[in-house]
Amino acid sequence: MWVFVNDRFMRKEEAVVSVFDHGFLYGDGVYETLRSYGTRIFMRDQHLSRLRRSAESIGLRIPIPDEQWPELLHEAMRRNDVGTDRVDAYLRITISRGEGEIGLDPALCPRPTVVIMTKALHAPSPELLRDGVSLTVAQTRRNLPAALSPQIKSTNFLNNILAKRESIAAGTFDSLFLNWRDELTECTISNLFFVADGTVHTPALDCGILDGITRGIVMTLAKEEGLPVQEGHYQLNHLHKAEECFLTNTSMEVMPVSRVETFTIGDGRPGPVTRRLQKRFAASRTRFCEAAPEPHF
Amino acid sequence: MWVFVNDRFMRKEEAVVSVFDHGFLYGDGVYETLRSYGTRIFMRDQHLSRLRRSAESIGLRIPIPDEQWPELLHEAMRRNDVGTDRVDAYLRITISRGEGEIGLDPALCPRPTVVIMTKALHAPSPELLRDGVSLTVAQTRRNLPAALSPQIKSTNFLNNILAKRESIAAGTFDSLFLNWRDELTECTISNLFFVADGTVHTPALDCGILDGITRGIVMTLAKEEGLPVQEGHYQLNHLHKAEECFLTNTSMEVMPVSRVETFTIGDGRPGPVTRRLQKRFAASRTRFCEAAPEPHF
Repeated sequence: MWVFVNDRFMRKEEAVVSVFDHGFLYGDGVYETLRSYGTRIFMRDQHLSRLRRSAESIGLRIPIPDEQWPELLHEAMRRNDVGTDRVDAYLRITISRGEGEIGLDPALCPRPTVVIMTKALHAPSPELLRDGVSLTVAQTRRNLPAALSPQIKSTNFLNNILAKRESIAAGTFDSLFLNWRDELTECTISNLFFVADGTVHTPALDCGILDGITRGIVMTLAKEEGLPVQEGHYQLNHLHKAEECFLTNTSMEVMPVSRVETFTIGDGRPGPVTRRLQKRFAASRTRFCEAAPEPHF
Repeated sequence: MWVFVNDRFMRKEEAVVSVFDHGFLYGDGVYETLRSYGTRIFMRDQHLSRLRRSAESIGLRIPIPDEQWPELLHEAMRRNDVGTDRVDAYLRITISRGEGEIGLDPALCPRPTVVIMTKALHAPSPELLRDGVSLTVAQTRRNLPAALSPQIKSTNFLNNILAKRESIAAGTFDSLFLNWRDELTECTISNLFFVADGTVHTPALDCGILDGITRGIVMTLAKEEGLPVQEGHYQLNHLHKAEECFLTNTSMEVMPVSRVETFTIGDGRPGPVTRRLQKRFAASRTRFCEAAPEPHF
């Protein structure tokens, strides 16, 4: 496996950072995960824009010019023989503050660290996509937006890891977070939707959630399907009364939820709106791939 | 400079971790900073106990047996020629989840990473200790305890870094955090105290603060001085009316605060209680050093 670190591709075994990298000492960094459908990277420019926004939010300079990213990402896929007609690619970009003396001041680190990892995309099993998954409601609350906004995709992921540990202990697929006001937010790596009275509901951004790229697409597709879409402030009782529920993210796309704790959603089987959105998403994926009709590198 | 990584000491230049270390990818780790007075490590066993508590809170196993730590810490000081009669030592222990596949499940990482760094302690300047420092009240709120408790000394430090950036921009010594309920909490790396009507006040642990080791000592010393000590829930207006204010941590000990934003504390000069506690702390330091009367390694 080849990994890009700072200025060149190297073997996984050589891909290291100093223990003085503030990414390691303090989780001082941002990241973005992307995927390809075949050779084409899904929503590439939107992911790169969000990476820039995350970096700006923490005052981190991205040392690679915007125009070099497409070629770097394609090179990463090519070197690892993924992002081909046969194998969809998963990509992760990490930018950390870089190596520096111990201390919180970002100025201690003259040069940010850039890492690009690529591997074959691990898509969820067809059974889960067909039957749905179960969720735990985490005791761990979602990060307070005024403390560390969930809209910054940072490498401070312990909040999510603590919630993930709860779902692992409970034997469920993932944990659903409530926020400091007992409102529904999101899961550890996906956004939440539910359907009630024919309307597609999803927590508003100010509940403290990531402005997910797949979330945005699914909202667009739902509207195109003529479904009312509502962003709002919801609590668990809204979910208990929901007819359908699903999660969205880049690699899962639209994942049905059949159970939340001991509550069965609807009749326990993915409902018609979820099915329609799954199909619609599959049919329109290529619309959202990178602009170039064919990879041109 | 020599750094201990996993199982041996190595030169700083060789001290690296994989980019797949979950400490780097997710900030999935804990740390502890210690200091020596001369050859003796201050509150060594208390720091090691807190390291264990932090690790337990995130389900992380510390791969080095308890009884090996004292020798390792002394070896680290010896190799770097600090922790001597002439040079006090600063030590930082970092334990991360270790290298593993991308994903939040801690089980992906079979072996935690252990790092011990040591250097000469950088004590604050005598001028600051004499005249006091100024604080910014951060717009960034302290982490929600139910999301990621400030009592876990984790390597998720972006909350603190965002607040530190505010104080750097304002040209002040540090930022004071409020919590989600507008209550006083702590600064980015120190605990807060203030004196009002002859009572020494400090935010209660459930405000969402670190249970600082120096904080505990200072509370003990204040009681021994016959001063009433109160842990409570305070807001900014309490601080505006305070006669004195100071910060505590391992390397600063007792640092007077002379100004908070545009408010001058007392007459702008460190007050009598702060002075007494500084002197008392200096006089009783050795009481709190490691139990062994002389380093025995």
